[in-house]
Amino acid sequence: MAPAYKLTYFNVTSLGEPIRFLLNYGNLEFEDVRIDMEQWPTIKPTMPFGQMPILEHNGKVAHQSIPIARYVAKQVKLNGKNDWEDLEIDSAVETVNDLRAKLAVYHHEKDEAVKEAKAGPLFNEILPYYLEKLEAQVKLNNGYLACGRLTWADMYFVGILNYLNFMALKDIIADSPSLVSVKEHVLALPSIKAWIEKRPKTHI
Amino acid sequence: MAPAYKLTYFNVTSLGEPIRFLLNYGNLEFEDVRIDMEQWPTIKPTMPFGQMPILEHNGKVAHQSIPIARYVAKQVKLNGKNDWEDLEIDSAVETVNDLRAKLAVYHHEKDEAVKEAKAGPLFNEILPYYLEKLEAQVKLNNGYLACGRLTWADMYFVGILNYLNFMALKDIIADSPSLVSVKEHVLALPSIKAWIEKRPKTHI
Repeated sequence: MAPAYKLTYFNVTSLGEPIRFLLNYGNLEFEDVRIDMEQWPTIKPTMPFGQMPILEHNGKVAHQSIPIARYVAKQVKLNGKNDWEDLEIDSAVETVNDLRAKLAVYHHEKDEAVKEAKAGPLFNEILPYYLEKLEAQVKLNNGYLACGRLTWADMYFVGILNYLNFMALKDIIADSPSLVSVKEHVLALPSIKAWIEKRPKTHI
Repeated sequence: MAPAYKLTYFNVTSLGEPIRFLLNYGNLEFEDVRIDMEQWPTIKPTMPFGQMPILEHNGKVAHQSIPIARYVAKQVKLNGKNDWEDLEIDSAVETVNDLRAKLAVYHHEKDEAVKEAKAGPLFNEILPYYLEKLEAQVKLNNGYLACGRLTWADMYFVGILNYLNFMALKDIIADSPSLVSVKEHVLALPSIKAWIEKRPKTHI
């Protein structure tokens, strides 16, 4: 029988990897469809809003990476125990996503002079500000991003971290020991360790 | 006794209004704190990640507008009936938020030549693409954005619509009759009608 879940995304980690982490964490069998850039122009018009990842489950299709990750997190019990806990987790995820968006604006800038002008504020102000606050948040939360225990906020952060580092052209958490420990904790989970060993090796 | 909920934001609709809509929809009494731009430099450092809105409830503080809206939606029963419905709602909200982000990139562009260059793709391609797909989605969902009934996706969309129109400098849904009917439906809800009559009159 085909797996119950089918995730379609590019052959990179980026926005898809937090979802793949969560599916693996819960041992949910999934079809890991990876679209080549050459196939993309043909496939793009078939996507709900011209974007990936998409998740198919029970004959239905959903798009938007963070909502998909939240859905899978509920199936694998890495969500909150009550509505406020879910809010704490969601806020942490959105904050990491804000950081991603700020790195993306820099990464995708094509004008070299403009990119250079953006580098100063990004690397001297914005990144340190976020990382310092996230570091303090982990300290307050028993070594996790929210709720004092492992939640999908940690899976989201570690799942997308390679992509953040790729865009920043450096290890953004090198000087953030608590964030490093979140990373080490997630990567040491047997299900995630096994996934990283077997997943396709990609440039991002 | 002080209201159980306290929402702090600027004296505008923008990112705060979907939350205010939801609080009003559920007749949840809330303290509607509005920060003047002159006060902001003093208040900014006291905010969790230097941003608003924030919600205070039961002695705790949360930030990030969409997570806060999702939390309030659960209290007023405008969330999904199961995990997949929540995913459908979340995806619709994120799609509207993507549209907001694309308008914001244009709106905040300070270089007039760059802004002009961005106007073509935004108004001739991106906006029509999103609006056509959202229009089709509403038709498939019985006149709503998700789940075939009123959910917080509709409240989010209509709550933020003034802000989208402000950034676009036009009524973006003028040619989208199904989206107009979502707007009319939400604005005709007695609780929302009463809120709009009594809320502070602001420039956005």
